[in-house]
Amino acid sequence: MVTTGTWDIKESVSSPVYSTGKRPIKIHTKTVSDEMSNNHYESCIEACNQCLTACENCASSCLHEQDLKMMARCIELDRDCADICSLAARFMARGSPYAAKLCSLCAEICQACGDECAKHHMEHCKQCAAACHKCAEECRKMA
Amino acid sequence: MVTTGTWDIKESVSSPVYSTGKRPIKIHTKTVSDEMSNNHYESCIEACNQCLTACENCASSCLHEQDLKMMARCIELDRDCADICSLAARFMARGSPYAAKLCSLCAEICQACGDECAKHHMEHCKQCAAACHKCAEECRKMA
Amino acid sequence: MVTTGTWDIKESVSSPVYSTGKRPIKIHTKTVSDEMSNNHYESCIEACNQCLTACENCASSCLHEQDLKMMARCIELDRDCADICSLAARFMARGSPYAAKLCSLCAEICQACGDECAKHHMEHCKQCAAACHKCAEECRKMA
Amino acid sequence: MVTTGTWDIKESVSSPVYSTGKRPIKIHTKTVSDEMSNNHYESCIEACNQCLTACENCASSCLHEQDLKMMARCIELDRDCADICSLAARFMARGSPYAAKLCSLCAEICQACGDECAKHHMEHCKQCAAACHKCAEECRKMA
Repeated sequence: MVTTGTWDIKESVSSPVYSTGKRPIKIHTKTVSDEMSNNHYESCIEACNQCLTACENCASSCLHEQDLKMMARCIELDRDCADICSLAARFMARGSPYAAKLCSLCAEICQACGDECAKHHMEHCKQCAAACHKCAEECRKMA
Repeated sequence: MVTTGTWDIKESVSSPVYSTGKRPIKIHTKTVSDEMSNNHYESCIEACNQCLTACENCASSCLHEQDLKMMARCIELDRDCADICSLAARFMARGSPYAAKLCSLCAEICQACGDECAKHHMEHCKQCAAACHKCAEECRKMA
Repeated sequence: MVTTGTWDIKESVSSPVYSTGKRPIKIHTKTVSDEMSNNHYESCIEACNQCLTACENCASSCLHEQDLKMMARCIELDRDCADICSLAARFMARGSPYAAKLCSLCAEICQACGDECAKHHMEHCKQCAAACHKCAEECRKMA
Repeated sequence: MVTTGTWDIKESVSSPVYSTGKRPIKIHTKTVSDEMSNNHYESCIEACNQCLTACENCASSCLHEQDLKMMARCIELDRDCADICSLAARFMARGSPYAAKLCSLCAEICQACGDECAKHHMEHCKQCAAACHKCAEECRKMA
């Protein structure tokens, strides 16, 4: 559950979607579009948070594997993926006009990280692959 | 739900809690203590993610309030709070030996941010105050 | 000065440019291309760090201005700009294959933030505009 | 060079040191104390940026070393160290009242990371050890 999405008409001026000229929003439609974008963002923010948690855990776990060399690329991708998921979630939560573009790059990195993790049989990699692929899918919807 | 906590005996060497000499863990108790620490961390990671989402949304919403001057300190604290929650969640997810110390500072900033937000009647501030106070409580348990 | 770029032949296997299949690098050319990419990245990392410092300072200073409403968009852009500069610098420093794509988005946000800051006469805005425009230029070279 | 520290009397209301009651500053002394704190912060922000760049580079380089197992703890510490340096630099740049406390933890992590890197003979580790120890020293002055 994300603590957004409850603006009423009275507070529609407090829109977190900020006015950069790229998304002109009329006052009367603002409340509705905000609620839409908040509902719209909610599951993607959640997917990003799940994915970054899985990536952080996977990277730490990989570093303790017996065949560490085999995990090097996985660790590298986990690091980039956790970072971009973290920022994508924050851009969405703050209603940044750049959220969609960041989600597009996030989807690409999540897909690559998930594909790499899916090659390994360890539980942390399998969990990470699932979280990455889910997040890639959610981010593609935003982009 | 956090995608950690499912190590079995066979994979107990892959512990994400890394070995800095501060938390010596014997092989046979590692699986159990990992599961404990993952369960232990899980609700705090979740609280940090909720809190940072609420803070990002609150800061953006504050910037569109009529009486913006009144919200300046709230915006400043939202920013620090979102940043520290984000890093605390990641340190916990990766099993960093510094997670507890970061949670201690996170609790202090969350408390201050929640107290400031609680002074305002806007829905985004009320939601943020609740998320901050919840997170402060969870972080104090980790510290 | 960035503490990279001093690999010699013997250590050329330790390339920070990681192997995702997108940038195949032969051993004998690796050292040279690394040095090139480190020199290449160095001034952009520096520009990103300058820019994010200026944005953090500008946002804090804006929040204490008399006409705070006039600064709202500046604060919003400062926040996005500081975040993306921070991540772009880190992706470059670690030799991520996604550094160029992140720099492309970073250039766009820096340009928008610099253009907004340039509208204001305060010293912190003028300094921030200069840092943003410089960083946009450096990031465009990477993209 | 950090783009801060040029407030004059007229703009002394735009202090980036925000008012949480912990650092009460009188108007007439504000300009001076700001300049002091900006000069004070400047070399520490620079040290943090150098350190995080070195840590990112070291972690990526470690992942390509022949004896990767020997580098695992180095990679773990590089990651924590880069993250905390990044946030410490930003808290200082924005004049957060929590900058000193974050610098205190940053100093501890930098020291541990520098000590670990100093055990290895690779150029990236030597450079990282130097950057970490320098940053630990600068952060201790802030704490």
